Amino acid sequence: MLLVEVSMSPFGKGESVGRYVARSLDIIDHSGLDYRLNPMGTVIEGEWDAVFAVIKQCYTRMRRDCNRISISIRADYRKGARNRLTGKVHSVERRLKRRLKTT
Amino acid sequence: MLLVEVSMSPFGKGESVGRYVARSLDIIDHSGLDYRLNPMGTVIEGEWDAVFAVIKQCYTRMRRDCNRISISIRADYRKGARNRLTGKVHSVERRLKRRLKTT
Amino acid sequence: MLLVEVSMSPFGKGESVGRYVARSLDIIDHSGLDYRLNPMGTVIEGEWDAVFAVIKQCYTRMRRDCNRISISIRADYRKGARNRLTGKVHSVERRLKRRLKTT
Amino acid sequence: MLLVEVSMSPFGKGESVGRYVARSLDIIDHSGLDYRLNPMGTVIEGEWDAVFAVIKQCYTRMRRDCNRISISIRADYRKGARNRLTGKVHSVERRLKRRLKTT
Repeated sequence: MLLVEVSMSPFGKGESVGRYVARSLDIIDHSGLDYRLNPMGTVIEGEWDAVFAVIKQCYTRMRRDCNRISISIRADYRKGARNRLTGKVHSVERRLKRRLKTT
Repeated sequence: MLLVEVSMSPFGKGESVGRYVARSLDIIDHSGLDYRLNPMGTVIEGEWDAVFAVIKQCYTRMRRDCNRISISIRADYRKGARNRLTGKVHSVERRLKRRLKTT
Repeated sequence: MLLVEVSMSPFGKGESVGRYVARSLDIIDHSGLDYRLNPMGTVIEGEWDAVFAVIKQCYTRMRRDCNRISISIRADYRKGARNRLTGKVHSVERRLKRRLKTT
Repeated sequence: MLLVEVSMSPFGKGESVGRYVARSLDIIDHSGLDYRLNPMGTVIEGEWDAVFAVIKQCYTRMRRDCNRISISIRADYRKGARNRLTGKVHSVERRLKRRLKTT
């Protein structure tokens, strides 16, 4: 499984792009894949094809009314690993023996 | 104010780098800056000098026993904006009129 | 058309990962897509499906003998734009009326 | 020494941001640090303080007339390594025993 953080924004639509970000989150939230939204992007967990199909859906939707789009994707594949959306954060907290700010 | 997401990992220390990530989070958590840890990085809010001083501290600590380090930083500056660690997520939820997965 | 910069490295294979990077470049170079290698990644130009098919090939190859992989992708879509592998650099040089360091 | 790739663009200034990118390149080109411009960013080689001072200069200049700025930075530190702006590309070419597209 992969953890994939994606951030996608249009250029040329002004400083406020929340409307376009919300449309992507609507797609991700309905995709059936597990995910976590954070202030700089959305981390999705899944296999390669499933995750990139959802990201392409967001891109295809944005292309309909945006002429320039900037996309940032970071992925972390780890063989056999699962439930890392919560597992990675908890693992850091266990090491430090205290809770950290997560939401 | 800036939102700055940072992710920093050593190469050559095996597949599991949680020990090194925990040291960075310890530095960030004690920095006094507001932040949120997510499964792919940590988003810090603050002015340029304050945020990059903390990131440099993490880097300096990691350099002590790591010969190769990979760092990814994404920053979003918005004039006059504050409290965006929670504000950006809430703004997306308000637009979609429902709660999203955040933690 | 999109410009897509990709960087893909295994964890747990030591500090030197050039062997794995070379295999990806071999795939990209044989893909038929236009690209430019730089010291921090490879920029590929093409449509979404073509570019991401090549990136998936690199990932699939690396998975065969790497248990943890870190991938960074940044994409810039611009409607109707072509030949931006050379065009974007030349455009900056034209504005500054001098040559810059590019290779 | 570090290799640091930086890409910095304003939001809210339309689809074409070449004017702002050129100003950053002017600063980087005059900084005295070695660098290479590519179609998706600029890779700078140097020590942490020197490189981040130049990036901050670009940011400070852009802030003067841009209310929202997006910045992407990826860094690769390797102990004792130098001349990696050309060295990393050549190393891949040597492994593949052929020239690749670089400019």
